[in-house]
Amino acid sequence: MKIRKTNPGIVRIGTETNPEHAKFALSTGIVEEVLPMKEAIDKADLVLIALPVNLISEVLPSILDQVSGTKKVVIDAGSTKAGICERVKNHPGRGNFVAGHPIAGTENSGPTAAFDSLFDAKRFIICAEEHSYPWALEAAIQFVAMLQMEVTFLSPTVHDRSYAYVSHLSHAISYSLGVSVLEMEKEIEGLVELSGTGFSSMVRLAKSSASMWVPVLMQNQLETTKAIDRFISRLEKVKQLINDRDETGLRDFILHANEIHELLVQKEKAQAKLKL
Amino acid sequence: MKIRKTNPGIVRIGTETNPEHAKFALSTGIVEEVLPMKEAIDKADLVLIALPVNLISEVLPSILDQVSGTKKVVIDAGSTKAGICERVKNHPGRGNFVAGHPIAGTENSGPTAAFDSLFDAKRFIICAEEHSYPWALEAAIQFVAMLQMEVTFLSPTVHDRSYAYVSHLSHAISYSLGVSVLEMEKEIEGLVELSGTGFSSMVRLAKSSASMWVPVLMQNQLETTKAIDRFISRLEKVKQLINDRDETGLRDFILHANEIHELLVQKEKAQAKLKL
Repeated sequence: MKIRKTNPGIVRIGTETNPEHAKFALSTGIVEEVLPMKEAIDKADLVLIALPVNLISEVLPSILDQVSGTKKVVIDAGSTKAGICERVKNHPGRGNFVAGHPIAGTENSGPTAAFDSLFDAKRFIICAEEHSYPWALEAAIQFVAMLQMEVTFLSPTVHDRSYAYVSHLSHAISYSLGVSVLEMEKEIEGLVELSGTGFSSMVRLAKSSASMWVPVLMQNQLETTKAIDRFISRLEKVKQLINDRDETGLRDFILHANEIHELLVQKEKAQAKLKL
Repeated sequence: MKIRKTNPGIVRIGTETNPEHAKFALSTGIVEEVLPMKEAIDKADLVLIALPVNLISEVLPSILDQVSGTKKVVIDAGSTKAGICERVKNHPGRGNFVAGHPIAGTENSGPTAAFDSLFDAKRFIICAEEHSYPWALEAAIQFVAMLQMEVTFLSPTVHDRSYAYVSHLSHAISYSLGVSVLEMEKEIEGLVELSGTGFSSMVRLAKSSASMWVPVLMQNQLETTKAIDRFISRLEKVKQLINDRDETGLRDFILHANEIHELLVQKEKAQAKLKL
C-alpha cells in the first residue's frame, strides 16, 4: 500500500492461493495483477515472500532455482531466520536472496489487515547479509527505504534468540493466558466480561493465526523453549515471594520489571525521530 | 473529573499525604479543597477510599468508627475484596460501607493519570451488598451512575477468584516477562530496541506501581497463586507440544486460545451499547 503511494511507477504483481484474498487485493489496488507464482517471478525484478515460515523454507529453493544467474532479488519476511538461511546455504542462487524480517504486523492477517502506516519507521532486520550478492543487498536496502523502514543487521542466531524473547515468548504466553481464562470461564460464567483493558492488552496476541505461529514456534524450538523456561522460573519466583509473604522481595521484583519502560521509551523516542 | 463536569453542584474534597499530588489536584480542579482525613470525612456525605488495598484495610475501621451512626456512606475502590470485607465484618459501622471495585485504570498512577473518559461505560463491582444498609447501597449505586458506570454484584470470593484470572495473573505475567527480557538485555545489548508492538502490549502492565500491586498480590495470595499454577501448566503444555514437534496439538491449542476474542468482542459490543 505504502509503495503504491510513494512509488506509483512500480508495478506490483501478486501471487495468491486464496481467490478471495486475490480478489480483495486487486479490487483495493494492493496489487495490479495476480499471476501464478512462476509467471509472476518471470516478470519481476524483486520477489517478496510473505508466507508462514514453513512454507518459505518449502518454496524458497525452487524460487532460487528460477532466479539463479539472473539479477532478480528475492526477499523473505519470515519471523525466524536460522532455519531458512540454513535451508538454502549451499544453493547456487543463494546470493540473489536477502533474508529479511519486517518488525511490523498486528494480531490480524490476510490482505484486509493491511494499512498504510503499518511499516512507518519500523525496523527491517536483514540476516546473513554476507551471503547475499552486494547488488542484491543494495536493492533490498533501497526497497526497505521505500517503505520508510530502518535496516538492522543481525546474525540468524542472534535474530532467533532475540525474537524468542521479544516476540515468540510473548505469543506463547498470550495463547496460554487465553486458554487458562477460557477454562476458568466454564467455572465462572461471564468471567471475560468482568475483565478490563489490561487483560485485553495481554491477550491481543492470542488472536494471532495458527498457520503463521505454529511454524514460527516449531522452527525456533530451541530458543523459544529456553525463553519459556526462563520466564516460568521468574513467574515461579513471584509465586514464591507471594507465598513467603516477602513484601520487600516482591517490591524489588516489581521495581526491576518497571525498568522495562525506560527502555521502551528510549525505543519510541528513536522511532519518533525516524518519522520526522 | 467526570463528576465535576456532569454534576457541578457536588463539592469534591481531597485528602492526600503527597503535597505535590495535593497541589496538582487543586490546581487542575480535580478537587476544590484538600483537608486532613478526619476533617474531610466530617464535611462529607460520601467518602471514597482510593488507596492501595493494604492501606484500605488499615484505615477503614477508623473511618467506620467516625461515620458509624451517621448517614455517611463509605465506598472503597480496592482490587481485592475478601480481605477488606472480612476486616470490617463485625464493625458497628459496617452498614455504612459499600465494598467497591471500579474496573478502570491504566498502568499509570497518581492524579496526573486521571482523564475524563476513564470510567465511561466501565464496570463497577459491588461486593457483599447484603452487609450494606439499603440507603448506603442506594447512594453508592447513584454515585456509580453519575460516573456512567455499570454496577455488577459479586460475592467477595467470586470477585477475588475472577480478578485473580483476568487481572492479578496478567500483572504477575507482565512483570515476569519484563524481568526475563531485562535479564536477556544484558546478554543481547539493544534487545528491547528490536521489539515490536506485540511486546509493548505484553509489558504495558509491567509499569504498574509496586505500592499498589504488592498488596493486591499478597491479599489475594490463594487465588492468584492458583491462577499462576494453572497458567504455568498451560505454558508447559505449549513447550511440550513444541518439543514433541506436535504441530496438530499446537494448532489446536492456538485455535482454542483464539476463541478468547469472540468473548472480548461480545464484551466490547455490550460496552459500546452502554455508551450510547
